[in-house]
Amino acid sequence: MAVVNDHTVKAFDEDINRLRGLISEMGGRAEQALLQAMTALSKGDLALAAQVVEGDKKIDALEAEVEQLTVQTIALRAPMADDLREMIAALKIVSVVERIGDYAKNIAKRVALMDQTRSIESIPVLMSMSAIVAELIHDALDSFAARDADLAVRVTVRDKNVDDFYNSIFRTLVTFMMENPKYITESAHLLFVAKNLERMGDHATNIAEMVYYVVTGERMEERERGETPEDSATAEKEQG
Amino acid sequence: MAVVNDHTVKAFDEDINRLRGLISEMGGRAEQALLQAMTALSKGDLALAAQVVEGDKKIDALEAEVEQLTVQTIALRAPMADDLREMIAALKIVSVVERIGDYAKNIAKRVALMDQTRSIESIPVLMSMSAIVAELIHDALDSFAARDADLAVRVTVRDKNVDDFYNSIFRTLVTFMMENPKYITESAHLLFVAKNLERMGDHATNIAEMVYYVVTGERMEERERGETPEDSATAEKEQG
Repeated sequence: MAVVNDHTVKAFDEDINRLRGLISEMGGRAEQALLQAMTALSKGDLALAAQVVEGDKKIDALEAEVEQLTVQTIALRAPMADDLREMIAALKIVSVVERIGDYAKNIAKRVALMDQTRSIESIPVLMSMSAIVAELIHDALDSFAARDADLAVRVTVRDKNVDDFYNSIFRTLVTFMMENPKYITESAHLLFVAKNLERMGDHATNIAEMVYYVVTGERMEERERGETPEDSATAEKEQG
Repeated sequence: MAVVNDHTVKAFDEDINRLRGLISEMGGRAEQALLQAMTALSKGDLALAAQVVEGDKKIDALEAEVEQLTVQTIALRAPMADDLREMIAALKIVSVVERIGDYAKNIAKRVALMDQTRSIESIPVLMSMSAIVAELIHDALDSFAARDADLAVRVTVRDKNVDDFYNSIFRTLVTFMMENPKYITESAHLLFVAKNLERMGDHATNIAEMVYYVVTGERMEERERGETPEDSATAEKEQG
Protein backbone atom coordinates (compact mmCIF):
# COMPACT_ATOMS: atom_id res chain seq x y z
CA MET A 1 0.00 0.00 0.00
CA ALA A 2 1.22 3.47 -0.74
CA VAL A 3 1.64 5.71 2.24
CA VAL A 4 0.36 9.25 1.71
CA ASN A 5 3.06 11.80 2.42
CA ASP A 6 4.55 14.86 0.76
CA HIS A 7 6.68 12.73 -1.46
CA THR A 8 3.69 10.77 -2.72
CA VAL A 9 1.67 13.93 -3.33
CA LYS A 10 4.48 15.54 -5.29
CA ALA A 11 5.07 12.41 -7.35
CA PHE A 12 1.36 12.24 -8.05
CA ASP A 13 1.28 15.86 -9.24
CA GLU A 14 4.17 15.11 -11.55
CA ASP A 15 2.31 12.13 -12.99
CA ILE A 16 -0.84 14.21 -13.52
CA ASN A 17 1.14 16.94 -15.27
CA ARG A 18 2.86 14.45 -17.52
CA LEU A 19 -0.54 12.92 -18.29
CA ARG A 20 -1.99 16.31 -19.22
CA GLY A 21 1.00 17.03 -21.42
CA LEU A 22 0.56 13.76 -23.29
CA ILE A 23 -3.15 14.36 -23.80
CA SER A 24 -2.51 17.85 -25.06
CA GLU A 25 0.08 16.57 -27.54
CA MET A 26 -2.30 13.86 -28.68
CA GLY A 27 -5.10 16.37 -29.20
CA GLY A 28 -2.83 18.68 -31.18
CA ARG A 29 -1.82 15.81 -33.44
CA ALA A 30 -5.42 14.72 -34.03
CA GLU A 31 -6.49 18.27 -34.92
CA GLN A 32 -3.50 18.58 -37.26
CA ALA A 33 -4.32 15.21 -38.85
CA LEU A 34 -7.83 16.39 -39.63
CA LEU A 35 -6.67 19.63 -41.24
CA GLN A 36 -3.98 17.85 -43.25
CA ALA A 37 -6.38 15.13 -44.40
CA MET A 38 -8.80 17.77 -45.68
CA THR A 39 -6.01 19.70 -47.43
CA ALA A 40 -4.88 16.45 -49.03
CA LEU A 41 -8.46 15.80 -50.13
CA SER A 42 -9.01 19.22 -51.64
CA LYS A 43 -5.67 19.26 -53.46
CA GLY A 44 -5.48 15.57 -54.30
CA ASP A 45 -2.17 15.47 -52.46
CA LEU A 46 -1.37 11.79 -52.07
CA ALA A 47 1.92 12.36 -50.24
CA LEU A 48 0.23 14.46 -47.57
CA ALA A 49 -2.53 11.85 -47.28
CA ALA A 50 0.11 9.15 -46.74
CA GLN A 51 1.71 11.33 -44.07
CA VAL A 52 -1.60 11.51 -42.19
CA VAL A 53 -2.01 7.74 -42.35
CA GLU A 54 1.54 7.24 -41.09
CA GLY A 55 1.16 9.90 -38.36
CA ASP A 56 -1.81 8.08 -36.89
CA LYS A 57 0.57 5.49 -35.46
CA LYS A 58 2.04 8.16 -33.20
CA ILE A 59 -1.45 9.06 -31.95
CA ASP A 60 -2.10 5.40 -31.15
CA ALA A 61 1.26 5.17 -29.38
CA LEU A 62 0.41 8.22 -27.26
CA GLU A 63 -2.87 6.60 -26.24
CA ALA A 64 -1.00 3.49 -25.13
CA GLU A 65 1.44 5.65 -23.18
CA VAL A 66 -1.36 7.52 -21.38
CA GLU A 67 -3.00 4.24 -20.55
CA GLN A 68 0.15 2.75 -19.11
CA LEU A 69 0.95 5.87 -17.11
CA THR A 70 -2.59 6.00 -15.74
CA VAL A 71 -2.61 2.40 -14.60
CA GLN A 72 0.84 2.82 -13.08
CA THR A 73 -0.12 5.99 -11.25
CA ILE A 74 -3.31 4.51 -9.87
CA ALA A 75 -1.46 1.39 -8.72
CA LEU A 76 1.45 3.25 -7.11
CA ARG A 77 -0.21 6.36 -5.69
CA ALA A 78 -3.70 5.07 -4.88
CA PRO A 79 -5.28 8.49 -5.59
CA MET A 80 -8.38 9.63 -3.72
CA ALA A 81 -11.83 9.72 -5.33
CA ASP A 82 -11.60 13.10 -7.14
CA ASP A 83 -8.15 12.50 -8.58
CA LEU A 84 -9.13 8.99 -9.52
CA ARG A 85 -12.17 10.31 -11.37
CA GLU A 86 -9.97 12.72 -13.31
CA MET A 87 -7.62 9.90 -14.27
CA ILE A 88 -10.49 7.75 -15.47
CA ALA A 89 -11.78 10.74 -17.47
CA ALA A 90 -8.31 11.12 -18.97
CA LEU A 91 -8.42 7.49 -20.10
CA LYS A 92 -11.80 8.00 -21.73
CA ILE A 93 -10.76 11.23 -23.37
CA VAL A 94 -7.70 9.71 -25.02
CA SER A 95 -9.77 6.85 -26.36
CA VAL A 96 -12.04 9.47 -27.99
CA VAL A 97 -9.06 11.40 -29.36
CA GLU A 98 -7.72 8.16 -30.78
CA ARG A 99 -10.98 7.69 -32.65
CA ILE A 100 -10.84 11.26 -33.96
CA GLY A 101 -7.41 10.36 -35.32
CA ASP A 102 -8.90 7.27 -36.96
CA TYR A 103 -11.54 9.36 -38.71
CA ALA A 104 -8.84 11.69 -40.03
CA LYS A 105 -6.92 8.66 -41.27
CA ASN A 106 -10.06 7.32 -42.92
CA ILE A 107 -10.53 10.63 -44.78
CA ALA A 108 -6.87 10.55 -45.85
CA LYS A 109 -7.27 7.03 -47.21
CA ARG A 110 -10.13 8.14 -49.42
CA VAL A 111 -7.96 10.71 -51.22
CA ALA A 112 -6.55 7.98 -53.46
CA LEU A 113 -10.09 7.01 -54.46
CA MET A 114 -11.15 10.44 -55.62
CA ASP A 115 -8.95 11.82 -58.36
CA GLN A 116 -11.91 13.00 -60.41
CA THR A 117 -13.69 14.63 -57.53
CA ARG A 118 -11.88 17.88 -56.92
CA SER A 119 -14.38 19.70 -59.09
CA ILE A 120 -17.39 18.61 -57.03
CA GLU A 121 -18.93 21.73 -55.60
CA SER A 122 -19.27 20.30 -52.08
CA ILE A 123 -15.53 20.37 -51.40
CA PRO A 124 -15.35 24.03 -50.26
CA VAL A 125 -18.31 23.45 -47.92
CA LEU A 126 -16.58 20.37 -46.52
CA MET A 127 -13.49 22.50 -45.93
CA SER A 128 -15.50 25.05 -43.95
CA MET A 129 -17.14 22.26 -41.99
CA SER A 130 -13.77 20.72 -41.15
CA ALA A 131 -12.41 24.07 -39.93
CA ILE A 132 -15.24 24.27 -37.39
CA VAL A 133 -14.72 20.67 -36.34
CA ALA A 134 -10.99 21.25 -35.83
CA GLU A 135 -11.84 24.24 -33.62
CA LEU A 136 -14.26 22.16 -31.57
CA ILE A 137 -11.63 19.48 -31.02
CA HIS A 138 -9.14 22.14 -30.03
CA ASP A 139 -11.53 23.86 -27.62
CA ALA A 140 -12.74 20.58 -26.09
CA LEU A 141 -9.15 19.68 -25.19
CA ASP A 142 -8.46 23.21 -23.99
CA SER A 143 -11.48 22.94 -21.71
CA PHE A 144 -9.93 19.80 -20.22
CA ALA A 145 -6.52 21.38 -19.76
CA ALA A 146 -8.01 24.51 -18.16
CA ARG A 147 -10.84 22.69 -16.34
CA ASP A 148 -13.15 25.21 -18.00
CA ALA A 149 -16.79 24.08 -17.79
CA ASP A 150 -18.10 27.14 -19.67
CA LEU A 151 -15.86 26.44 -22.64
CA ALA A 152 -17.05 22.83 -22.55
CA VAL A 153 -20.67 24.00 -22.79
CA ARG A 154 -19.82 26.27 -25.73
CA VAL A 155 -18.32 23.31 -27.57
CA THR A 156 -21.54 21.32 -27.31
CA VAL A 157 -23.61 24.31 -28.45
CA ARG A 158 -21.42 24.93 -31.49
CA ASP A 159 -21.63 21.28 -32.49
CA LYS A 160 -25.13 22.15 -33.79
CA ASN A 161 -23.52 24.08 -36.65
CA VAL A 162 -21.64 20.96 -37.63
CA ASP A 163 -24.89 19.00 -37.77
CA ASP A 164 -26.44 21.71 -39.95
CA PHE A 165 -23.46 21.52 -42.29
CA TYR A 166 -23.84 17.76 -42.49
CA ASN A 167 -27.53 17.92 -43.38
CA SER A 168 -26.90 20.52 -46.02
CA ILE A 169 -24.01 18.60 -47.58
CA PHE A 170 -26.03 15.39 -47.58
CA ARG A 171 -28.75 17.10 -49.63
CA THR A 172 -26.31 18.75 -51.99
CA LEU A 173 -24.43 15.54 -52.66
CA VAL A 174 -27.56 13.50 -53.26
CA THR A 175 -28.77 16.08 -55.79
CA PHE A 176 -25.35 16.08 -57.41
CA MET A 177 -25.42 12.28 -57.67
CA MET A 178 -28.82 12.34 -59.37
CA GLU A 179 -27.55 14.82 -61.94
CA ASN A 180 -24.11 13.23 -62.40
CA PRO A 181 -24.46 9.47 -62.13
CA LYS A 182 -20.90 8.93 -63.33
CA TYR A 183 -19.59 10.64 -60.17
CA ILE A 184 -21.68 8.51 -57.83
CA THR A 185 -18.71 6.59 -56.40
CA GLU A 186 -16.74 9.75 -55.64
CA SER A 187 -19.81 11.42 -54.19
CA ALA A 188 -20.43 8.40 -51.97
CA HIS A 189 -16.90 8.80 -50.60
CA LEU A 190 -17.60 12.47 -49.94
CA LEU A 191 -20.79 11.49 -48.10
CA PHE A 192 -18.61 9.38 -45.83
CA VAL A 193 -16.15 12.24 -45.39
CA ALA A 194 -19.04 14.49 -44.32
CA LYS A 195 -20.25 11.78 -41.95
CA ASN A 196 -16.74 11.42 -40.49
CA LEU A 197 -16.61 15.15 -39.83
CA GLU A 198 -20.02 15.05 -38.21
CA ARG A 199 -18.88 12.17 -35.98
CA MET A 200 -15.70 14.03 -35.05
CA GLY A 201 -17.88 16.94 -33.91
CA ASP A 202 -19.89 14.50 -31.80
CA HIS A 203 -16.67 13.22 -30.28
CA ALA A 204 -15.55 16.76 -29.40
CA THR A 205 -18.93 17.09 -27.69
CA ASN A 206 -18.36 13.82 -25.82
CA ILE A 207 -15.05 15.14 -24.53
CA ALA A 208 -16.70 18.41 -23.50
CA GLU A 209 -19.38 16.50 -21.61
CA MET A 210 -16.76 14.49 -19.72
CA VAL A 211 -14.87 17.66 -18.85
CA TYR A 212 -18.05 19.27 -17.61
CA TYR A 213 -18.73 16.26 -15.41
CA VAL A 214 -15.22 16.14 -13.95
CA VAL A 215 -15.18 19.88 -13.25
CA THR A 216 -18.71 20.39 -11.90
CA GLY A 217 -19.63 16.93 -10.65
CA GLU A 218 -22.88 17.20 -12.65
CA ARG A 219 -24.07 15.93 -16.02
CA MET A 220 -24.50 18.56 -18.72
CA GLU A 221 -28.08 19.62 -19.38
CA GLU A 222 -30.06 17.40 -21.73
CA ARG A 223 -29.54 19.19 -24.04
CA GLU A 224 -28.17 22.25 -25.47
CA ARG A 225 -26.61 19.76 -27.88
CA GLY A 226 -28.96 19.60 -30.83
CA GLU A 227 -30.12 16.62 -32.82
CA THR A 228 -28.17 14.08 -34.75
CA PRO A 229 -28.85 14.20 -38.48
CA GLU A 230 -30.88 11.00 -38.31
CA ASP A 231 -33.14 12.70 -35.78
CA SER A 232 -33.98 15.43 -38.21
CA ALA A 233 -35.62 12.90 -40.48
CA THR A 234 -37.45 15.48 -42.55
CA ALA A 235 -34.25 17.23 -43.57
CA GLU A 236 -32.85 14.17 -45.29
CA LYS A 237 -36.21 12.87 -46.36
CA GLU A 238 -37.11 15.88 -48.47
CA GLN A 239 -34.81 14.48 -51.12
CA GLY A 240 -36.49 11.05 -51.20
CA MET B 1 -5.68 3.16 2.63
CA ALA B 2 -7.40 -0.17 2.30
CA VAL B 3 -5.89 -2.96 4.32
CA VAL B 4 -5.59 -6.22 2.42
CA ASN B 5 -7.23 -9.06 4.29
CA ASP B 6 -9.68 -11.87 3.54
CA HIS B 7 -12.60 -9.54 3.85
CA THR B 8 -11.16 -7.12 1.27
CA VAL B 9 -10.34 -9.93 -1.14
CA LYS B 10 -13.82 -11.38 -0.89
CA ALA B 11 -15.44 -7.97 -1.36
CA PHE B 12 -13.22 -7.38 -4.37
CA ASP B 13 -14.23 -10.70 -5.94
CA GLU B 14 -17.85 -9.76 -5.45
CA ASP B 15 -17.27 -6.43 -7.17
CA ILE B 16 -15.51 -8.10 -10.09
CA ASN B 17 -18.33 -10.61 -10.48
CA ARG B 18 -20.94 -7.87 -10.42
CA LEU B 19 -18.90 -5.96 -13.00
CA ARG B 20 -18.72 -9.00 -15.28
CA GLY B 21 -22.45 -9.52 -14.92
CA LEU B 22 -23.18 -5.92 -15.93
CA ILE B 23 -20.88 -6.12 -18.95
CA SER B 24 -22.46 -9.34 -20.05
CA GLU B 25 -25.95 -7.82 -19.77
CA MET B 26 -24.81 -4.76 -21.69
CA GLY B 27 -23.32 -6.90 -24.47
CA GLY B 28 -26.50 -8.97 -24.73
CA ARG B 29 -28.55 -5.81 -25.10
CA ALA B 30 -26.27 -4.35 -27.77
CA GLU B 31 -26.37 -7.56 -29.79
CA GLN B 32 -30.16 -7.65 -29.46
CA ALA B 33 -30.41 -3.98 -30.49
CA LEU B 34 -28.49 -4.72 -33.68
CA LEU B 35 -30.67 -7.69 -34.64
CA GLN B 36 -33.88 -5.76 -33.88
CA ALA B 37 -32.71 -2.69 -35.81
CA MET B 38 -32.03 -4.84 -38.87
CA THR B 39 -35.39 -6.62 -38.56
CA ALA B 40 -37.07 -3.22 -38.29
CA LEU B 41 -35.19 -2.10 -41.39
CA SER B 42 -36.07 -5.12 -43.48
CA LYS B 43 -39.75 -5.07 -42.48
CA GLY B 44 -40.18 -1.32 -42.24
CA ASP B 45 -41.32 -1.83 -38.65
CA LEU B 46 -41.35 1.65 -37.12
CA ALA B 47 -42.53 0.47 -33.69
CA LEU B 48 -39.63 -1.96 -33.38
CA ALA B 49 -37.23 0.76 -34.55
CA ALA B 50 -38.56 3.09 -31.86
CA GLN B 51 -38.05 0.33 -29.30
CA VAL B 52 -34.39 0.04 -30.28
CA VAL B 53 -33.91 3.81 -29.95
CA GLU B 54 -35.59 3.77 -26.54
CA GLY B 55 -33.64 0.70 -25.39
CA ASP B 56 -30.33 2.42 -26.03
CA LYS B 57 -30.90 4.50 -22.89
CA LYS B 58 -30.62 1.34 -20.82
CA ILE B 59 -27.30 0.49 -22.50
CA ASP B 60 -26.02 3.97 -21.68
CA ALA B 61 -27.20 3.59 -18.09
CA LEU B 62 -25.37 0.28 -17.77
CA GLU B 63 -22.17 1.92 -18.98
CA ALA B 64 -22.53 4.62 -16.32
CA GLU B 65 -23.14 1.92 -13.70
CA VAL B 66 -20.02 -0.01 -14.71
CA GLU B 67 -18.00 3.17 -14.62
CA GLN B 68 -19.20 4.10 -11.16
CA LEU B 69 -18.64 0.61 -9.81
CA THR B 70 -15.15 0.49 -11.29
CA VAL B 71 -14.08 3.82 -9.81
CA GLN B 72 -15.57 2.83 -6.47
CA THR B 73 -13.86 -0.54 -6.46
CA ILE B 74 -10.49 0.90 -7.37
CA ALA B 75 -10.81 3.60 -4.71
CA LEU B 76 -11.95 1.25 -1.95
CA ARG B 77 -10.02 -1.93 -2.66
CA ALA B 78 -6.83 -0.57 -4.25
CA PRO B 79 -6.45 -3.65 -6.48
CA MET B 80 -3.00 -4.92 -7.48
CA ALA B 81 -1.63 -4.42 -11.00
CA ASP B 82 -3.26 -7.40 -12.76
CA ASP B 83 -6.70 -6.81 -11.29
CA LEU B 84 -6.37 -3.11 -11.96
CA ARG B 85 -5.55 -3.82 -15.58
CA GLU B 86 -8.64 -5.99 -15.90
CA MET B 87 -10.78 -3.21 -14.44
CA ILE B 88 -9.36 -0.65 -16.86
CA ALA B 89 -10.02 -3.10 -19.70
CA ALA B 90 -13.59 -3.46 -18.46
CA LEU B 91 -14.02 0.31 -18.64
CA LYS B 92 -12.72 0.39 -22.19
CA ILE B 93 -14.85 -2.56 -23.25
CA VAL B 94 -18.07 -0.98 -22.02
CA SER B 95 -17.28 2.22 -23.86
CA VAL B 96 -16.94 0.17 -27.05
CA VAL B 97 -20.18 -1.70 -26.33
CA GLU B 98 -21.90 1.64 -25.81
CA ARG B 99 -20.77 2.71 -29.27
CA ILE B 100 -22.04 -0.54 -30.76
CA GLY B 101 -25.39 0.34 -29.19
CA ASP B 102 -25.20 3.78 -30.79
CA TYR B 103 -24.64 2.28 -34.23
CA ALA B 104 -27.67 0.04 -33.75
CA LYS B 105 -29.69 3.09 -32.74
CA ASN B 106 -28.45 4.96 -35.79
CA ILE B 107 -29.63 2.12 -38.04
CA ALA B 108 -33.01 2.10 -36.28
CA LYS B 109 -33.40 5.84 -36.84
CA ARG B 110 -32.90 5.40 -40.56
CA VAL B 111 -35.90 3.05 -40.83
CA ALA B 112 -38.26 6.05 -40.92
CA LEU B 113 -36.32 7.48 -43.86
CA MET B 114 -36.58 4.41 -46.03
CA ASP B 115 -40.16 3.42 -46.74
CA GLN B 116 -39.49 2.86 -50.44
CA THR B 117 -36.36 0.87 -49.93
CA ARG B 118 -37.50 -2.58 -48.90
CA SER B 119 -37.32 -3.77 -52.48
CA ILE B 120 -33.65 -2.85 -52.90
CA GLU B 121 -31.78 -6.06 -53.54
CA SER B 122 -29.01 -5.29 -51.02
CA ILE B 123 -31.26 -5.77 -48.00
CA PRO B 124 -30.89 -9.58 -47.76
CA VAL B 125 -27.11 -9.25 -48.04
CA LEU B 126 -27.15 -6.62 -45.28
CA MET B 127 -29.17 -9.05 -43.15
CA SER B 128 -26.53 -11.77 -43.63
CA MET B 129 -23.79 -9.30 -42.84
CA SER B 130 -25.54 -8.21 -39.66
CA ALA B 131 -25.95 -11.82 -38.49
CA ILE B 132 -22.18 -12.28 -38.69
CA VAL B 133 -21.55 -8.99 -36.90
CA ALA B 134 -23.96 -9.96 -34.10
CA GLU B 135 -22.06 -13.24 -33.71
CA LEU B 136 -18.74 -11.41 -33.51
CA ILE B 137 -20.06 -9.09 -30.81
CA HIS B 138 -21.39 -12.08 -28.92
CA ASP B 139 -18.14 -14.02 -29.18
CA ALA B 140 -15.97 -11.03 -28.31
CA LEU B 141 -17.88 -10.60 -25.06
CA ASP B 142 -17.82 -14.34 -24.41
CA SER B 143 -14.05 -14.26 -24.82
CA PHE B 144 -13.92 -11.60 -22.11
CA ALA B 145 -16.20 -13.52 -19.75
CA ALA B 146 -14.25 -16.76 -20.25
CA ARG B 147 -10.82 -15.11 -20.54
CA ASP B 148 -10.48 -17.07 -23.79
CA ALA B 149 -7.61 -15.71 -25.92
CA ASP B 150 -8.17 -18.25 -28.72
CA LEU B 151 -11.77 -17.17 -29.14
CA ALA B 152 -10.58 -13.57 -29.20
CA VAL B 153 -8.20 -14.37 -32.08
CA ARG B 154 -11.00 -16.12 -33.98
CA VAL B 155 -13.15 -12.98 -33.71
CA THR B 156 -10.49 -10.83 -35.35
CA VAL B 157 -9.98 -13.38 -38.13
CA ARG B 158 -13.70 -13.58 -38.89
CA ASP B 159 -13.97 -9.78 -39.05
CA LYS B 160 -12.39 -10.13 -42.51
CA ASN B 161 -15.66 -11.58 -43.80
CA VAL B 162 -17.45 -8.49 -42.60
CA ASP B 163 -15.06 -6.29 -44.55
CA ASP B 164 -15.63 -8.41 -47.67
CA PHE B 165 -19.37 -8.01 -47.23
CA TYR B 166 -18.97 -4.26 -46.93
CA ASN B 167 -16.90 -3.97 -50.11
CA SER B 168 -19.37 -6.06 -52.03
CA ILE B 169 -22.39 -4.11 -50.77
CA PHE B 170 -20.68 -0.80 -51.56
CA ARG B 171 -20.22 -1.87 -55.18
CA THR B 172 -23.75 -3.24 -55.48
CA LEU B 173 -25.33 -0.11 -54.05
CA VAL B 174 -23.31 2.24 -56.24
CA THR B 175 -24.38 0.30 -59.33
CA PHE B 176 -27.97 0.33 -58.13
CA MET B 177 -27.80 4.11 -57.64
CA MET B 178 -26.51 4.64 -61.17
CA GLU B 179 -29.37 2.59 -62.58
CA ASN B 180 -32.06 3.96 -60.25
CA PRO B 181 -31.35 7.64 -59.58
CA LYS B 182 -34.69 8.11 -57.87
CA TYR B 183 -33.62 5.74 -55.09
CA ILE B 184 -30.33 7.54 -54.43
CA THR B 185 -31.35 8.93 -51.05
CA GLU B 186 -32.51 5.55 -49.77
CA SER B 187 -29.42 3.87 -51.17
CA ALA B 188 -27.20 6.43 -49.46
CA HIS B 189 -28.85 5.52 -46.17
CA LEU B 190 -28.17 1.85 -46.87
CA LEU B 191 -24.53 2.70 -47.57
CA PHE B 192 -24.38 4.17 -44.08
CA VAL B 193 -26.09 1.10 -42.64
CA ALA B 194 -23.44 -1.08 -44.29
CA LYS B 195 -20.73 1.20 -42.92
CA ASN B 196 -22.25 1.01 -39.43
CA LEU B 197 -22.17 -2.79 -39.60
CA GLU B 198 -18.58 -2.74 -40.77
CA ARG B 199 -17.66 -0.42 -37.86
CA MET B 200 -19.47 -2.69 -35.39
CA GLY B 201 -17.33 -5.57 -36.64
CA ASP B 202 -14.24 -3.42 -36.06
CA HIS B 203 -15.43 -2.71 -32.54
CA ALA B 204 -15.91 -6.43 -31.84
CA THR B 205 -12.32 -6.81 -33.01
CA ASN B 206 -11.21 -4.02 -30.68
CA ILE B 207 -12.82 -5.82 -27.76
CA ALA B 208 -11.17 -9.08 -28.79
CA GLU B 209 -7.78 -7.37 -28.92
CA MET B 210 -8.23 -5.95 -25.42
CA VAL B 211 -9.25 -9.38 -24.12
CA TYR B 212 -6.21 -10.93 -25.73
CA TYR B 213 -3.98 -8.37 -24.06
CA VAL B 214 -5.52 -8.79 -20.62
CA VAL B 215 -5.36 -12.59 -20.82
CA THR B 216 -1.92 -13.07 -22.38
CA GLY B 217 -0.12 -9.84 -21.48
CA GLU B 218 0.83 -9.48 -25.16
CA ARG B 219 -0.51 -7.51 -28.11
CA MET B 220 -2.26 -9.53 -30.78
CA GLU B 221 -0.22 -10.18 -33.93
CA GLU B 222 -0.26 -7.40 -36.52
CA ARG B 223 -2.37 -8.76 -38.15
CA GLU B 224 -4.55 -11.54 -38.88
CA ARG B 225 -7.16 -8.80 -39.05
CA GLY B 226 -7.41 -7.89 -42.69
CA GLU B 227 -7.70 -4.51 -44.31
CA THR B 228 -10.25 -1.82 -43.81
CA PRO B 229 -12.33 -1.16 -46.90
CA GLU B 230 -10.48 2.10 -47.55
CA ASP B 231 -7.25 0.13 -47.64
CA SER B 232 -8.49 -2.01 -50.45
CA ALA B 233 -8.69 1.05 -52.67
CA THR B 234 -8.98 -0.93 -55.87
CA ALA B 235 -12.12 -2.73 -54.75
CA GLU B 236 -14.08 0.49 -54.42
CA LYS B 237 -12.26 2.23 -57.20
CA GLU B 238 -13.28 -0.24 -59.89
CA GLN B 239 -16.65 1.44 -59.91
CA GLY B 240 -15.23 4.92 -60.50
